[in-house]
Amino acid sequence: MAIAKDLVVPPRGMRDLLPDEVALRDRVSAAILDTYVAWGFRHIETPAVENIRNLTAGQGGDNEKLIFKILKRGEEVEDWAKAQSLDALVDLGLRFDLTVPLVRYYAHNRAKLPRLFKAIQMGPVWRAERPQRGRFRQFVQCDIDVIGSGAALVEVELCAATAAALQKVGFRDFTIRLNDRRVLEGLARRCGFAEDRHGAVFVSVDKLDKIGRDGVVAELRAHGHDEAAVASLDAVLAGLTAPLADAAAFRAALAPGADEAAVYDGLASIAEALAAASGGSYRVQLDPTLVRGMGYYTGPVFEIVYKDYPFSIAGGGRYDKMIGRLIGEDVPACGFSIGFERIITILQEEAAAAATAPARRIAIIVDGDVPPARGLAEAARLRAAGDEVTLLPREKNFGRQLKTLHADGYSGFAILRAAGLGPIEAATTERAGA
Amino acid sequence: MAIAKDLVVPPRGMRDLLPDEVALRDRVSAAILDTYVAWGFRHIETPAVENIRNLTAGQGGDNEKLIFKILKRGEEVEDWAKAQSLDALVDLGLRFDLTVPLVRYYAHNRAKLPRLFKAIQMGPVWRAERPQRGRFRQFVQCDIDVIGSGAALVEVELCAATAAALQKVGFRDFTIRLNDRRVLEGLARRCGFAEDRHGAVFVSVDKLDKIGRDGVVAELRAHGHDEAAVASLDAVLAGLTAPLADAAAFRAALAPGADEAAVYDGLASIAEALAAASGGSYRVQLDPTLVRGMGYYTGPVFEIVYKDYPFSIAGGGRYDKMIGRLIGEDVPACGFSIGFERIITILQEEAAAAATAPARRIAIIVDGDVPPARGLAEAARLRAAGDEVTLLPREKNFGRQLKTLHADGYSGFAILRAAGLGPIEAATTERAGA
Repeated sequence: MAIAKDLVVPPRGMRDLLPDEVALRDRVSAAILDTYVAWGFRHIETPAVENIRNLTAGQGGDNEKLIFKILKRGEEVEDWAKAQSLDALVDLGLRFDLTVPLVRYYAHNRAKLPRLFKAIQMGPVWRAERPQRGRFRQFVQCDIDVIGSGAALVEVELCAATAAALQKVGFRDFTIRLNDRRVLEGLARRCGFAEDRHGAVFVSVDKLDKIGRDGVVAELRAHGHDEAAVASLDAVLAGLTAPLADAAAFRAALAPGADEAAVYDGLASIAEALAAASGGSYRVQLDPTLVRGMGYYTGPVFEIVYKDYPFSIAGGGRYDKMIGRLIGEDVPACGFSIGFERIITILQEEAAAAATAPARRIAIIVDGDVPPARGLAEAARLRAAGDEVTLLPREKNFGRQLKTLHADGYSGFAILRAAGLGPIEAATTERAGA
Repeated sequence: MAIAKDLVVPPRGMRDLLPDEVALRDRVSAAILDTYVAWGFRHIETPAVENIRNLTAGQGGDNEKLIFKILKRGEEVEDWAKAQSLDALVDLGLRFDLTVPLVRYYAHNRAKLPRLFKAIQMGPVWRAERPQRGRFRQFVQCDIDVIGSGAALVEVELCAATAAALQKVGFRDFTIRLNDRRVLEGLARRCGFAEDRHGAVFVSVDKLDKIGRDGVVAELRAHGHDEAAVASLDAVLAGLTAPLADAAAFRAALAPGADEAAVYDGLASIAEALAAASGGSYRVQLDPTLVRGMGYYTGPVFEIVYKDYPFSIAGGGRYDKMIGRLIGEDVPACGFSIGFERIITILQEEAAAAATAPARRIAIIVDGDVPPARGLAEAARLRAAGDEVTLLPREKNFGRQLKTLHADGYSGFAILRAAGLGPIEAATTERAGA
């Protein structure tokens, strides 16, 4: 009987994860979680599913178009044929990020939470994007957020904790890039862009890494922005020939007005604290062209880049107005999100996983005439010494069984006969028999 | 502005998990996963979502009526109003267990998996049950399965590994109960129940713990089973006055036919191996009335009960015919599932969590004139000594801030002033100010 293919494949755009990949993901998750817990953050969980009204309240940007919508059940659907629209049949959806659920969680549970609340969230989110190589419709996000304080200490702790987590995972050669949305606002204002066009200007500036200064300027012109403002911004960009490692260079490149002193001082204090905390183990750079896409950011924004990978491996910023939209009272908040799938991809490419690989994986092959209890006892003895140990019943085709051990991921094996346990031998694809 | 309640509550029947509960769940998950990995099982992951055809193929019993169904998206829905039924609008659903996805995973990936495959699965499942106290529509399952061998060694290893995981979590006083579906079949046959009524008989026998022998017999009579058969079964049940600790007592109570020798020998060898492996740290009992609900079991079945809790904390069995239904070729399989939510409930009730609670949780309160980098350095020093350490900016209302530290879960605090870090003081609800 042939297997019905559509019965055995995972849903379109989703993946089955094989054991080696899950082992890597588990090691990375545990390293990140352990670090954040040691830094005083608290792990929380929300359901994978949210009420559809909460997912479509306008906080999710384009992600709101990508929701997996869940049908009402049983008696909750009166008569589908009489429903006025598809939406009338839907009451729930799969979450598309962890920020919208966090804000709802905080609003619902704040009486039981510390006034200054430091949250960890790690879990899958779902987006019905057009499937493409390297992008999946279910993927893991890994966020920390601090709710309830506007102090610069918050940004410093978020960035330093994220750096510590990445170092625990094994990343070394990375750079934290910092900016402030208000620096961008001031720059756009001084260049002479119309206030209501600032958002559009930032979208173009955000492409600097991809299309270069000439590309950004050309796009701004094509979009019909004020010609003198574009020329003015072009001059500022031309002056940014190297990464800005300190606050003095940052101020010199941007010539902020006196009214912006507090914003620049705040950003400088964050950068200086991080540079001191890094002890040279990672770089800290100020970048006035750093935008970070989400519309809800209100202050400092940051990201972490690694080697010459064309994407950031972590990103975040301050969003002081988002909680207020839900609960009617502004509560300052700031978050940093590690791109979990991206760092897994990098670790797989670099085979860095090998550095943290577990101990030996040993198979004890148990002859048919040996009582199972003896197999358990021998396995327990090896396991106590730190090995991963599995029991395999001896198969009729013993030669084939030995041949496949290496391919099956075992580093060694030993045969348990009535006479006792044999020596541990290396699993190899060469061996033809016993 | 009042908060719109329906925007902030989780979906009906689902939960937000607060930090203390998640910390407990994380410790339990890690203890179970570490144990199973050390025993040679491999962690795998499937998507939370499955194709609806796979979820409704008849393997899930009543759970198939409880599926959260996902609407087709965008261009995948041609014209909903012309659809002939609700089902025509649905292509996916949330998984209701981990066994149906495991069987699909094995069928899809078997070329990349060991021929004798030992899988760990831990993750949420969803069932649209009527919400009731203690039951939730999203809950975690925690399964190990061995695919590809019919040897009794498999049952032994599954039971011993599950016992080891529960011991690692902190459970001591538990009992593994064993039976075999074929023992039940033989018993029903010898009592004289019609072959096609055996399933219904088992459903009644399964209630023995809840309604007692008289209740079971009354129900069998009410259901119209053969009167002589009911009387015969009643006599057997009357003989089972104490748990059967060994195979000889088991045989004596049931008087099996010669054709059942292999089944009884297999069950005896499993029980003996487990009793030896336990070293007296848990009990092993044979129970001919143990049914385990799922219809797909074909051989040994087992469960773990703890103290006098009226539910099992783990359950499983052999299902040698289930994979064959999907791939057209019988592959033996056997699994054991820990009731994750149940053991969390027990641990919370017993406050056993305290025994594995982490080190001190310390808050460093940073004065406004102290550079953030000094806070990071002091925190790193305490963290290196094993504490969980968080930084809090000093609030204007310092007295109130100190008062809430205990309620917020901190065990101690220290104040970081320009002059240096103060002593670590115990967080208390009594303290009125600094």
